Amino acid sequence: MPVREMTESYPMEINLDRDLISDTVQVLMECAQACTACGDSCLSEMEIGELAKCIRTDLDCADICETTARVLSRHTGYDANLTRAQLDACIQACTSCADECERHPRHDHCRICAETCRRCAEACRTMNEVIS
Amino acid sequence: MPVREMTESYPMEINLDRDLISDTVQVLMECAQACTACGDSCLSEMEIGELAKCIRTDLDCADICETTARVLSRHTGYDANLTRAQLDACIQACTSCADECERHPRHDHCRICAETCRRCAEACRTMNEVIS
Amino acid sequence: MPVREMTESYPMEINLDRDLISDTVQVLMECAQACTACGDSCLSEMEIGELAKCIRTDLDCADICETTARVLSRHTGYDANLTRAQLDACIQACTSCADECERHPRHDHCRICAETCRRCAEACRTMNEVIS
Amino acid sequence: MPVREMTESYPMEINLDRDLISDTVQVLMECAQACTACGDSCLSEMEIGELAKCIRTDLDCADICETTARVLSRHTGYDANLTRAQLDACIQACTSCADECERHPRHDHCRICAETCRRCAEACRTMNEVIS
Repeated sequence: MPVREMTESYPMEINLDRDLISDTVQVLMECAQACTACGDSCLSEMEIGELAKCIRTDLDCADICETTARVLSRHTGYDANLTRAQLDACIQACTSCADECERHPRHDHCRICAETCRRCAEACRTMNEVIS
Repeated sequence: MPVREMTESYPMEINLDRDLISDTVQVLMECAQACTACGDSCLSEMEIGELAKCIRTDLDCADICETTARVLSRHTGYDANLTRAQLDACIQACTSCADECERHPRHDHCRICAETCRRCAEACRTMNEVIS
Repeated sequence: MPVREMTESYPMEINLDRDLISDTVQVLMECAQACTACGDSCLSEMEIGELAKCIRTDLDCADICETTARVLSRHTGYDANLTRAQLDACIQACTSCADECERHPRHDHCRICAETCRRCAEACRTMNEVIS
Repeated sequence: MPVREMTESYPMEINLDRDLISDTVQVLMECAQACTACGDSCLSEMEIGELAKCIRTDLDCADICETTARVLSRHTGYDANLTRAQLDACIQACTSCADECERHPRHDHCRICAETCRRCAEACRTMNEVIS
C-alpha cells in the first residue's frame, strides 16, 4: 500500500500513529473518488432531474475529501487547530453526502458511495478524537 | 468582474445576497493564489530552512480556500451545515497562515499573503454570520 | 490586483514577463470559477437532461484550469516541458467546454462561460508561444 | 477495491475496458498522494535548500495527477481529445518528477515517489494508446 510506504518514509517524528494516518488518508482518497464517480454516474441516469442535489453534494464531498487527504498527508509544521477544523468539515460533508445518496439505494453508485462516505466520516471522527 | 456575472446568471433563487457571495468567492480565489505563490516564493528564499512551516501552511491554506470557493460557487441543493463547517475550516486555515506569514514581514510575499489571509478570514466570518 | 502583487514579490529572476504571467493566471482563475458555476447552474435548469455533457465538460475544465493556474503561479525550478504540456491540455479543455456551452446560448451562464473559456484558451496559446 | 466497484456501477456503456480505467485511476491517486507526501518530507530534510526544485515538481505532479484521476473517473459526455491532452500532460509531469526524485535516492520518500511516478507515467501511456 503506497500510502503506508510514504507515511513510513517521513524523516522526522510524527506524534500520531503512522498506520492510523495512512488508513485515514486511504479512506479519504477512496471517498473523494467515489463521490466524483457517483456524481458522474448520476449525470447518466434517466431521472437526472431528481439527482441534482445528489450531484451537487457529491461534488462538494469530493473536493473536501481531497483537501482533507492532502492536509493529513503533510506532517511538517503540524497545526492541530487547522487539522481538526478541516476534519470537522469533512465529517459534515461525508454525512450530508451519505444522507443524500441513501435516498436512492436502487442506484448501485449511490449505495456504494453512501457506504464509503459513512466509513470516511467514521475514520475522520476517530482521527479527530486522537488529535483532541 | 466575471464572478459577479456568473453569480447573477444562476437561474433559480438564492437565499443569500448575490454580491456578498461573489465578493467572498473572489477573495477566496485571490487568497488561494496568494498562498500558492507565497509557498513557491519561500522555496526560492536563501533561508528556506526557516520557512518550512510557512510553506506547509501556505499549501494547506491554498487547498482549503480553493475548496471553499467551489462550495460557495454552487447553489443547487444548498446545505447550510456543510457550508458553515467548510467556512469554519477556512477561517482557521487563513488565521494560521496569516499568523505564520506575519513572522517574516521582511519578505514582501509573506506580508501580502498575510494581509490577503486576514481579509479572507474576515470575509468568511461575515458570510458565516449571514448564514447562521 | 493581488495576482500581480504576488508575482511582483517573487524573490528571484523569472524568464517570462511578470505581467503576462499574472494576466494569464487571472484568466485561468476566472475560467475555473466560471466553469464550476456554469456546471452548477446547469444542474438547476429545467432541461437538465440535455445539459449532462455540458456539466461534465464544465467539471473537467474547472479542474484543469485550476491546476494550470497553480503551475503558472510557481516559478522555482521551472520546467518548460511540463508547463507547455499542461497549457496544451488547458487549451483543449477550454476549447471543448466553449464548443459545448455555445450550443446553449439561451442560458446566460453558458454564454458567459463560453466567452471566458475562449478568452482563457487564447491566453494559454499566447503563453505557450512565448515559452516555446 | 472501491475504484473498481465505482467504475462497475456506471450505468451506461463505456467504450474502454473498465478494469483498465480503474487501475489507471488507482495509480493516479497513489501518485498524487506520493507526490504530496514527498514534497512534505523534503520540507523536513536538513538539506531542504537542495530540494527546492524537487518540492516544486512534487506539487505540480500532485495537482496534475489528481486532475487526471478526476477526468478518467468521469464517463458521461466523453471527450477523447481532452482526455488525451490531459494524459499527455500527466506523462510529462510524472517523468519530470521521477527524473528529479531519482537524483536523491538516499531519501526513501524520493525513491518511492520516483517509482510511483514511473509506474503512473507507464499507466497513462498505456491508456493513451488504447484511446488513440
